[in-house]
Amino acid sequence: MAEAERPTLAEVGEIAVLARIFPRLPEADAALLGPGDDAAVLAAPDGRYVVTTDMLVHGPDFRWEFSTPEDLGWKAAATNLSDVAAMGARPTALVVGLAAPSSTPVDVLESFADGLRLACAELAPGCGVVGGDLSTSDVFTVAVTAFGDLEGRPPVRRSGARSGDVVAVAGELGVAARGLRLLFEHGRVEALRIDDHAVRRQLRPVPPIALGTAAAEAGASAMMDLSDGLVLDARRLAQASVVDLELDPLDDDQARGGEDHSLLATFSAGAELPDGFRSIGVVAPGTGRVRIGGREFVGLGGWDPYEQWDGRLS
Amino acid sequence: MAEAERPTLAEVGEIAVLARIFPRLPEADAALLGPGDDAAVLAAPDGRYVVTTDMLVHGPDFRWEFSTPEDLGWKAAATNLSDVAAMGARPTALVVGLAAPSSTPVDVLESFADGLRLACAELAPGCGVVGGDLSTSDVFTVAVTAFGDLEGRPPVRRSGARSGDVVAVAGELGVAARGLRLLFEHGRVEALRIDDHAVRRQLRPVPPIALGTAAAEAGASAMMDLSDGLVLDARRLAQASVVDLELDPLDDDQARGGEDHSLLATFSAGAELPDGFRSIGVVAPGTGRVRIGGREFVGLGGWDPYEQWDGRLS
Repeated sequence: MAEAERPTLAEVGEIAVLARIFPRLPEADAALLGPGDDAAVLAAPDGRYVVTTDMLVHGPDFRWEFSTPEDLGWKAAATNLSDVAAMGARPTALVVGLAAPSSTPVDVLESFADGLRLACAELAPGCGVVGGDLSTSDVFTVAVTAFGDLEGRPPVRRSGARSGDVVAVAGELGVAARGLRLLFEHGRVEALRIDDHAVRRQLRPVPPIALGTAAAEAGASAMMDLSDGLVLDARRLAQASVVDLELDPLDDDQARGGEDHSLLATFSAGAELPDGFRSIGVVAPGTGRVRIGGREFVGLGGWDPYEQWDGRLS
Repeated sequence: MAEAERPTLAEVGEIAVLARIFPRLPEADAALLGPGDDAAVLAAPDGRYVVTTDMLVHGPDFRWEFSTPEDLGWKAAATNLSDVAAMGARPTALVVGLAAPSSTPVDVLESFADGLRLACAELAPGCGVVGGDLSTSDVFTVAVTAFGDLEGRPPVRRSGARSGDVVAVAGELGVAARGLRLLFEHGRVEALRIDDHAVRRQLRPVPPIALGTAAAEAGASAMMDLSDGLVLDARRLAQASVVDLELDPLDDDQARGGEDHSLLATFSAGAELPDGFRSIGVVAPGTGRVRIGGREFVGLGGWDPYEQWDGRLS
């Protein structure tokens, strides 16, 4: 397509850009007042609401050589919805900040909005975008804040695991990391040919959102989203609960791979696991250590934005 | 100070950085569960909550040659608190995303947190930070989402102004823009010498947060935050309400200057204005035009991030 047919943010201006994006954004059932005023107003029927926020920065968090704008919109929604689900809450709404170079074609933002809409429709029907902000930056940057409804249940924290509980996971382990490795080694086209599933899971994660509320209803004692790799995240849960976790043998991708956005949860020994969760170990008395197949993992063994491969880029 | 005494984000790592920042952040009275889990849980006693989000990007929105990290933290909080106040709500909490070069000294983030805390303490006591995200970017970028409590009142929208209402303002007009112009023309040190007040208002805006709820209680028919300049923002209110606004004579800075974060509100003709508001005109029948001293302003006359001076930088 000729560049002349792709007007940029600078050419179109903020008001017209917003007018093109708004119709593509998903509406939120919980919105009492949606976008267009100084702030939105959302319903909180049980008198509480869940809040989480996450940034996606070009370079460390995504790259245009791998992701389409629609992929990015999907991932920005999915990763935040997952944090809401990990509290045992039902996602209700998002606000989305976006800073882009002023030379960005407006259609990039339209496709990004499409990705937000598709992810909400598939992962959390009824959840929508209730507000946002547009700014300019040389580095394409997305900031999403997501909200959820606990529907009368207590939040499921990281600190509730007790010795004797079962450790369970819903969703895949290590698949998104394999997809990322293939993208770096082979580029998007060839990586998709080698392992279409793993690459798609890296670019468009499919966290088991509905299983967050299912786990809460089944009495999960602790839960968290697996974003930085099982070892690192499991240790956070173990430390918050002041227990050790004894996990079954896992391969290195499963143990360390990040960005699956699966759910890690613990349930009392007698509880029936909700459909979609599988046991991967047990909770033992301890002080926050994680053993896999009897071997303790030390060091980060996961993902730190200031110390891993991405941090070194900036 | 020797650089060796200023460890960077890359040297310290995410977990230790968070440990240094957390104690400096303001606590939120509304937090049922604060930072440290996948998401925070906030109280919404009246069954609704107000949400607004805003990004501050180095270059278009702030510059280290003008702002200290503490200034930036203050401004990031103040500008978002102002949007909450403009709905007639009391600000309750913030979440803060921050993407910084990994070479950034950790003390920059500590001072930024100090600015958040000082602004909350002065502008909205009881409001605090309940969550956040750290990432890396070559461009220092802040994304704040703010929440508020309507305390049983209906939100004050932009669309409620009616012909015959009084147009009123709380806070200054054009002062922050004068501060910005002085900073560009003279640099921070000399600009502060020429007009300390205007420069400080540009770097650390002091929006009249408490007057947002006061206006709502006094029955304001419409209200908004003045962030992009009176002319541009007043036209938004006029268009949303489908009225014209007839404003008293103002100088060019007062009419066009952005970033004061004053409150523009309309009240029925008979209403007593809350202390802190002053009349600047009347609402007339119309279709969304703004006249100042009888002269209609056309064009943007305000601030568009993709078309103004800052947009051209990227």
